Amino acid sequence: MSTVVPPEDPESDPRVKAVFDDIRAVRGNDFVNNVWRYLAFDPRLLEEVWTSVRDVMAKPTLIDFKTKEMIYVAVSIANSCHYCVHSHTAAAKARGMTDAEHAELLQIVSTAARTNHLLNGIQPPLDDAFNASPE
Amino acid sequence: MSTVVPPEDPESDPRVKAVFDDIRAVRGNDFVNNVWRYLAFDPRLLEEVWTSVRDVMAKPTLIDFKTKEMIYVAVSIANSCHYCVHSHTAAAKARGMTDAEHAELLQIVSTAARTNHLLNGIQPPLDDAFNASPE
Amino acid sequence: MSTVVPPEDPESDPRVKAVFDDIRAVRGNDFVNNVWRYLAFDPRLLEEVWTSVRDVMAKPTLIDFKTKEMIYVAVSIANSCHYCVHSHTAAAKARGMTDAEHAELLQIVSTAARTNHLLNGIQPPLDDAFNASPE
Amino acid sequence: MSTVVPPEDPESDPRVKAVFDDIRAVRGNDFVNNVWRYLAFDPRLLEEVWTSVRDVMAKPTLIDFKTKEMIYVAVSIANSCHYCVHSHTAAAKARGMTDAEHAELLQIVSTAARTNHLLNGIQPPLDDAFNASPE
Amino acid sequence: MSTVVPPEDPESDPRVKAVFDDIRAVRGNDFVNNVWRYLAFDPRLLEEVWTSVRDVMAKPTLIDFKTKEMIYVAVSIANSCHYCVHSHTAAAKARGMTDAEHAELLQIVSTAARTNHLLNGIQPPLDDAFNASPE
Amino acid sequence: MSTVVPPEDPESDPRVKAVFDDIRAVRGNDFVNNVWRYLAFDPRLLEEVWTSVRDVMAKPTLIDFKTKEMIYVAVSIANSCHYCVHSHTAAAKARGMTDAEHAELLQIVSTAARTNHLLNGIQPPLDDAFNASPE
Repeated sequence: MSTVVPPEDPESDPRVKAVFDDIRAVRGNDFVNNVWRYLAFDPRLLEEVWTSVRDVMAKPTLIDFKTKEMIYVAVSIANSCHYCVHSHTAAAKARGMTDAEHAELLQIVSTAARTNHLLNGIQPPLDDAFNASPE
Repeated sequence: MSTVVPPEDPESDPRVKAVFDDIRAVRGNDFVNNVWRYLAFDPRLLEEVWTSVRDVMAKPTLIDFKTKEMIYVAVSIANSCHYCVHSHTAAAKARGMTDAEHAELLQIVSTAARTNHLLNGIQPPLDDAFNASPE
Repeated sequence: MSTVVPPEDPESDPRVKAVFDDIRAVRGNDFVNNVWRYLAFDPRLLEEVWTSVRDVMAKPTLIDFKTKEMIYVAVSIANSCHYCVHSHTAAAKARGMTDAEHAELLQIVSTAARTNHLLNGIQPPLDDAFNASPE
Repeated sequence: MSTVVPPEDPESDPRVKAVFDDIRAVRGNDFVNNVWRYLAFDPRLLEEVWTSVRDVMAKPTLIDFKTKEMIYVAVSIANSCHYCVHSHTAAAKARGMTDAEHAELLQIVSTAARTNHLLNGIQPPLDDAFNASPE
Repeated sequence: MSTVVPPEDPESDPRVKAVFDDIRAVRGNDFVNNVWRYLAFDPRLLEEVWTSVRDVMAKPTLIDFKTKEMIYVAVSIANSCHYCVHSHTAAAKARGMTDAEHAELLQIVSTAARTNHLLNGIQPPLDDAFNASPE
Repeated sequence: MSTVVPPEDPESDPRVKAVFDDIRAVRGNDFVNNVWRYLAFDPRLLEEVWTSVRDVMAKPTLIDFKTKEMIYVAVSIANSCHYCVHSHTAAAKARGMTDAEHAELLQIVSTAARTNHLLNGIQPPLDDAFNASPE
């Protein structure tokens, strides 16, 4: 069940086909998962989202691929995006995340959530030592 | 402004003193930041929170210290914990996070948040390929 | 699967019947969706929730019906309420939201989420120009 | 700094005065805190919000006053509403919440947040035993 | 569908068996629900999470068992953890929560959420009267 | 207090100057608010964020400018981004939002939040009528 109608033959639209071709090329396999198939209901939005995700997640940057996917999973858990947790956990595993690293990621995320709630409940003043800005 | 009264002389309580001593020993300096000074209003809660945070964040584990702090920052941003964002960004910098890595972390977190909201809005079905469980 | 037991014959309770009749009258059709059928487990809560939703969403006010439903969808996405996203996206479409407007709504929501996370990560000081209050 | 301009002389509007009088009568003292002073920028919204909060929080119901305020604090922490955490923690204390109960509340809230994130990360299937509904 | 593979024969691991035995002993029945069966993918994480949840939720403390489960449900709703809402609503009912108390809990939680969003939108200044700390 | 150091003389960097010039040109005035001054700590991130926000919010699209800012405020409230609530409420007012429309926006947002929490607590099954997808 979704809120948009995915096109039946998405690649008949050349803009969609170009994105799907790029997805397959970047990943080196033929799997185009549902997020892209459903986003194809609006080719311009599909292009924009794919480009921005690809540029940070699928290209070499300062942070290694596995770590980037683990950070992505962490945010997706906190935002309760079920699809994103599933797809980026799978991506992190494809980038080499072991079960032991997965368990440690979950431990960090859930410990952070715990202190996030604790401090939102206590609201201590910020220590001056934390200020990066001159103001 | 906070919701609890931090004790005026926290280290007069031996349980608080033991935690503060451990904080200083683990960090190798004398700075005890406000979260611990305010949590000292309940020594048992202070002990429990410090122990669980220390065990995953301050001890060597599979994931390196800098990455752990960056994941902690990511979760704290998503949960809108201002104190936590400040304290763990400072910790990540102390563990070696450069400005360029900080910018990349923010880019990953904000891109993840973008697709989290997009997919919570579209709600595409989960791809079978993402299922780790046999069920 | 739900956490409450919806009554088998909800309209045998006159308070529930009155709400269901009002739902049908306001909408001009016979469809009473699950939120109301499940809320009927507590007739007083049903009455209160229906009244407050109806007064702002189903009566003419300053903001037009389609826009009100689009704002409702935006909040429901951010709060990860799957049922609400589905029901209010359907309502927005019933009020005339086109696929292109839906795509633009999703673009605004996801761009806002992106900068929400970015600024919760940076925490710049508020500009004085934004203050509406004299304080 | 706020996003609305509170009226300078709010009680010159009889609808605002009626609400403020009711607040003082219900509480048995003269303190009208900022949330109501700022909501007075729109008397109809002020009336509606005060009425719905008063009916559940300030009138005797099944759940005792102290517990109701503690639940309110729990939700406000999870939603990162700083003003609400402060005002309802103060209200819970006024209703008799001790420091030890406050510490236990924070422990429950932060433990719940921890498992919330853990399970949003693992996404185990729901046990049939949890289904209240016949469907 | 889950992100981890639950072990097929979890109790063949003595650490997992010890936790499952403790779960059954504490609850006085044989039901081990999915959260623990899936967490068994990492015995150390299983031990730590069970211990911390058990110590606050399953042992006698200042706040009674039913109220503790209701607070847990409130936080789980706000954090959109579906599994947690289901499991802790079931636990609250097992501790004696009636349908009328459940309805009142939902009314408090949803009223709190309403004012949380209202005040995050208005951002009135904090009243000095709310400050617990001398600073 | 912020987590990054804003450059002292940001426009000495030609990439930053180009963005600031574009901000001033698009807005038709000289005010460059703090979000851009702080994002200037990383010129590439500044360029990317400005471009994507500008394209949807500052260019004519299907949805009118005032409504777009009101949707942006709604999401920012739900995500507890204080800076964003302030800056986009100011922008909505600059686009013509009246106090009465602001009050109605807050009423819609807070009513949505209320039912979001109510339904996350009840978790009724989705009605088939809401499915846009053939699956």
